[in-house]
Amino acid sequence: MAPMTAAGEEMHALVERLYPLCRSITGDGVRATLDIVGEYIPLQVHEVPTGTQVLDWTVPQEWNIKDAYIADTAGHRVVDFAASSLHVLGYSVPVSATMPLAELRGHLHTLPDHPTWVPYRTSYYKPEWGFCLAQETLDALPEGEYEVCIDSTLTDGHLTYAEHVVPGQVPDEVIVSCHVCHPSLANDNLAGIAVATFLARALAQETPWYTYRFLFAPGTIGAITWLARNAERVDRVKHGLVLACAGDPGRLTYKQSRRGDAEIDRVMRHVLAASERPYHVAEFTPYGYDERQFCSPGFDLGVGSLSRTPYAGYPEYHTSADNLDFVSPEAMADTLAVCREAFAVLDRNRRYVNLSPYGEPQLGRRGLYDSLGGRSDAKQAQMAMLWVLSLSDGEHSLLDVAERSGLPFDTVAAAAGALHGAGLIKA
Amino acid sequence: MAPMTAAGEEMHALVERLYPLCRSITGDGVRATLDIVGEYIPLQVHEVPTGTQVLDWTVPQEWNIKDAYIADTAGHRVVDFAASSLHVLGYSVPVSATMPLAELRGHLHTLPDHPTWVPYRTSYYKPEWGFCLAQETLDALPEGEYEVCIDSTLTDGHLTYAEHVVPGQVPDEVIVSCHVCHPSLANDNLAGIAVATFLARALAQETPWYTYRFLFAPGTIGAITWLARNAERVDRVKHGLVLACAGDPGRLTYKQSRRGDAEIDRVMRHVLAASERPYHVAEFTPYGYDERQFCSPGFDLGVGSLSRTPYAGYPEYHTSADNLDFVSPEAMADTLAVCREAFAVLDRNRRYVNLSPYGEPQLGRRGLYDSLGGRSDAKQAQMAMLWVLSLSDGEHSLLDVAERSGLPFDTVAAAAGALHGAGLIKA
Amino acid sequence: MAPMTAAGEEMHALVERLYPLCRSITGDGVRATLDIVGEYIPLQVHEVPTGTQVLDWTVPQEWNIKDAYIADTAGHRVVDFAASSLHVLGYSVPVSATMPLAELRGHLHTLPDHPTWVPYRTSYYKPEWGFCLAQETLDALPEGEYEVCIDSTLTDGHLTYAEHVVPGQVPDEVIVSCHVCHPSLANDNLAGIAVATFLARALAQETPWYTYRFLFAPGTIGAITWLARNAERVDRVKHGLVLACAGDPGRLTYKQSRRGDAEIDRVMRHVLAASERPYHVAEFTPYGYDERQFCSPGFDLGVGSLSRTPYAGYPEYHTSADNLDFVSPEAMADTLAVCREAFAVLDRNRRYVNLSPYGEPQLGRRGLYDSLGGRSDAKQAQMAMLWVLSLSDGEHSLLDVAERSGLPFDTVAAAAGALHGAGLIKA
Repeated sequence: MAPMTAAGEEMHALVERLYPLCRSITGDGVRATLDIVGEYIPLQVHEVPTGTQVLDWTVPQEWNIKDAYIADTAGHRVVDFAASSLHVLGYSVPVSATMPLAELRGHLHTLPDHPTWVPYRTSYYKPEWGFCLAQETLDALPEGEYEVCIDSTLTDGHLTYAEHVVPGQVPDEVIVSCHVCHPSLANDNLAGIAVATFLARALAQETPWYTYRFLFAPGTIGAITWLARNAERVDRVKHGLVLACAGDPGRLTYKQSRRGDAEIDRVMRHVLAASERPYHVAEFTPYGYDERQFCSPGFDLGVGSLSRTPYAGYPEYHTSADNLDFVSPEAMADTLAVCREAFAVLDRNRRYVNLSPYGEPQLGRRGLYDSLGGRSDAKQAQMAMLWVLSLSDGEHSLLDVAERSGLPFDTVAAAAGALHGAGLIKA
Repeated sequence: MAPMTAAGEEMHALVERLYPLCRSITGDGVRATLDIVGEYIPLQVHEVPTGTQVLDWTVPQEWNIKDAYIADTAGHRVVDFAASSLHVLGYSVPVSATMPLAELRGHLHTLPDHPTWVPYRTSYYKPEWGFCLAQETLDALPEGEYEVCIDSTLTDGHLTYAEHVVPGQVPDEVIVSCHVCHPSLANDNLAGIAVATFLARALAQETPWYTYRFLFAPGTIGAITWLARNAERVDRVKHGLVLACAGDPGRLTYKQSRRGDAEIDRVMRHVLAASERPYHVAEFTPYGYDERQFCSPGFDLGVGSLSRTPYAGYPEYHTSADNLDFVSPEAMADTLAVCREAFAVLDRNRRYVNLSPYGEPQLGRRGLYDSLGGRSDAKQAQMAMLWVLSLSDGEHSLLDVAERSGLPFDTVAAAAGALHGAGLIKA
Repeated sequence: MAPMTAAGEEMHALVERLYPLCRSITGDGVRATLDIVGEYIPLQVHEVPTGTQVLDWTVPQEWNIKDAYIADTAGHRVVDFAASSLHVLGYSVPVSATMPLAELRGHLHTLPDHPTWVPYRTSYYKPEWGFCLAQETLDALPEGEYEVCIDSTLTDGHLTYAEHVVPGQVPDEVIVSCHVCHPSLANDNLAGIAVATFLARALAQETPWYTYRFLFAPGTIGAITWLARNAERVDRVKHGLVLACAGDPGRLTYKQSRRGDAEIDRVMRHVLAASERPYHVAEFTPYGYDERQFCSPGFDLGVGSLSRTPYAGYPEYHTSADNLDFVSPEAMADTLAVCREAFAVLDRNRRYVNLSPYGEPQLGRRGLYDSLGGRSDAKQAQMAMLWVLSLSDGEHSLLDVAERSGLPFDTVAAAAGALHGAGLIKA
């Protein structure tokens, strides 16, 4: 638990560094975020020009913002972007005006049910400007004139995303994706970014079977851009996981791929069921995070999504209450641990062929079997060997063996290793 | 509810008109029945000569009856066909004789467990004569001589059945079948005839996708005759429903086709599950009504059967207690409503292909999507569009989409319409 | 019940005769066993020389034993092979020595948890010598010198097994296998040998459809030897049953074949479910009896295993408590009865094709149907005919018909017989 806790603290520290930045689907906030992540793992950063056609979409203009506020006639800032990046409607066009509160209200977003929270709102594809604020702040404003200022730019520029690759023994890829477009929201998705970062770092210390590709990209348009620019690589993506909401106190939720029986789905279900954690497995829906794009019917990739409390499933979702207190080192460490367990299974889950399939091979003369017969307590390792031999017909994976036998995957994989070493099975 | 209740009253009025007629598998009772139905919807009446080979069967001689009675020595009719068509064994050969009660008993059918009810009995393929009467009537008869008279004819003639077609946009057919061979039995099957008649009338006011063919024919031999004479048309029958026992107070029962997963089976299960009615879905059995013929293994059509209390499932079944009081306007209206709901789903249940299957198409620029992002409450209509896009791979029907998404079929169908209108999917 | 009880008594008498013999995987104990079984049913005995390569294995040297004991310095035999064949470790190499108890302990096997029972232990493939004794016997031995003697031989010789064939109407075979290598253990597997013997005798009095081959062979190496020497015959084996632990008081357990949906699996499940016996169906595992060999992935035969309490599932397993009191005539008679019921189903379970598949054939004119219509109580035999006609599409077996209809298999088979006789279906 100690090393994991250390990783949890480090991940929380990363979240804290990223939290103040004003991210959006384009702009310098994303670049600053990737700069920080790049201090942990090397990143290949891509800049895609405004106007680039990506699948059915077009890369939008780049949005940047220096300042934004609502000030009263005394010049006092009653709402200030400097206090929280959430205060401005994402992708707000610039504005500089004075208007009565009655007119301003049409541009203000609040959460009447949570009067102390500031909502998160955007208007990416419809030119708007607006502010988000606490209901109680709004309620305290006297009628009268207000100065409104949004010092933003919306100009031709670039969409920014980054990749990090952990090379494997085979070119087949596992994609791990997280969105980097949300401003000061800790669980959605700074925790996902942090877990992805530390997962990459952990995998790099092994020599994994698969090549693991980590994608840090803005939601929707970022995944679509990656898919559009990597049409030839998509066929190599055999499995994938979208990480989001990875740090809240809730139980883990795995949302299955559109296929529902993809290998990643089976691996995640197995690992979660085998662990003693509370968890939930959710059916695919075409809503949520970037699994929507990876699982669109033309691609239909085996990509699921791992969260703690899922998309929109907690009151703090998309509000200022999704803050640094809402995510914990322990929760992020737990999410990271499950990812590592799952990839450890995925990475070893192969189909073997029994090279001595007629009758049982004589394990004893190969030193693989307890030589003293007549005992009723077959050892688990021996059972695992018999199960691997029985099901190694090219149809069953080691995960199939584990599930049908009820034996731990590690035991089954070790048995396969021993049998492979003895020349009794081939991959 | 008001128009439905009106239809219920009209259907009950039709049942009342048909009730007194003495129907059998051939004869003038069937013709008179079809004449009355023909006042509601145009019918094409077919007359098939005695001796015609139909599949494994032969059209039998035509049976007609003018009078039948048992009279005591005083000439008093103790059993009289004029009082109820049930009193005579269906297809009785003529008889005119005097005999002691002891001898007559061998020709009398009663229901000892329901001493006031008259049973319904027939002997189509074995020459017999007989009377059906209440047990209490029989018990009251003193021993002695009785005059028995059945003034029937059994001669070469015709088997009569009728069709009504509601033309659709495609030649693929849905067959709706009901048997018209039972005498004064209200639920079995005058209620079925009435619901079929009003269903045809309702469909004719729309322009359905499928061509709906209504078949009014005697049980077994009628369906076999239709199948024998329409060998080339059978391939066009994509779905079908046999209507019987459509007016009793019990919950609805859908009996699945032999295939069990035919589209009509799935549609009926969906519509019944989505409604708030109590209902039961029964497995196919090769007994019951004319689904036996449509589902015989050579045809194996997707034809189920809709009843309220099913075949032989109520004590009044095939007795004089299946009378005009046993069926209600409300029950018939409810059966009709379910048929209409089911056909409304069946008629729109198509498979689409997503023309923009790589990533999500940008719904926003097509005016199909709420342009203000960041809100967690995706609207049902938008979810339906995403689901239709996700599953429109040519494999899934809109019913699949509705069942997998949990969204109402109407919402899914509307979403498909919007996407089709935007050129994003094709049928 | 009377004849069955008689068979039960006869089977128990056979077990009593076989009990004292010291069987192993080779040697004269097996030959003496087969001599006795041969008094009940004719056996073809095979002798396979030491050193013969059989699949991945080699036929081992033949082991025989004349005497074995541990004696104290007074010459008193404290452990004596003459008292029980279990006292010597199976396949012990010869030894003649005097040693202190402290040194001897390394060669002694006991069951501390059952201090009065003698365990059964072997060392077939690793040269060892040893004794098995009750813990309480060991505890009573004073420290000091002991004479140990095992007068065994381990020399080139033969492996012995036997076959008995009940010829059928077709060359397709059902194999019934039991192991004959265990010494004085009544349930494992003298009861299995006895049930197999009387099953063969019962089948020979009929003319079964399948050819039934009974195999009496030592466990593992015997089955492997048979498979190696009958490579061309294996394709004829359509079904099979391994009999073991057939006489204890527990409920019946059927362990499914590796395929899990082999016909024998379905037949056994059906027969057990239809009977009023308590029973258990177990999934296949690659451990247990010779189903391990028959179900190895290269063969993957439809061979299950029938036991009462299964392999290693009772405390008496592989101990001296598995004695003549542990098995009963009633239990063996019950196991035999289930085997006969199962084979009676298997033997008649064929797929038919309806020769009149378009609509129902007119059963009435063929005398197959109650001619008096209108009655609601369809007779079971008529329902069975309708079900057979409905499902005789070449895809469904009579067992499918029985399971889908809920009718007894016997009724369904009789209906198929009647329809076949009437020329309405063909096999």
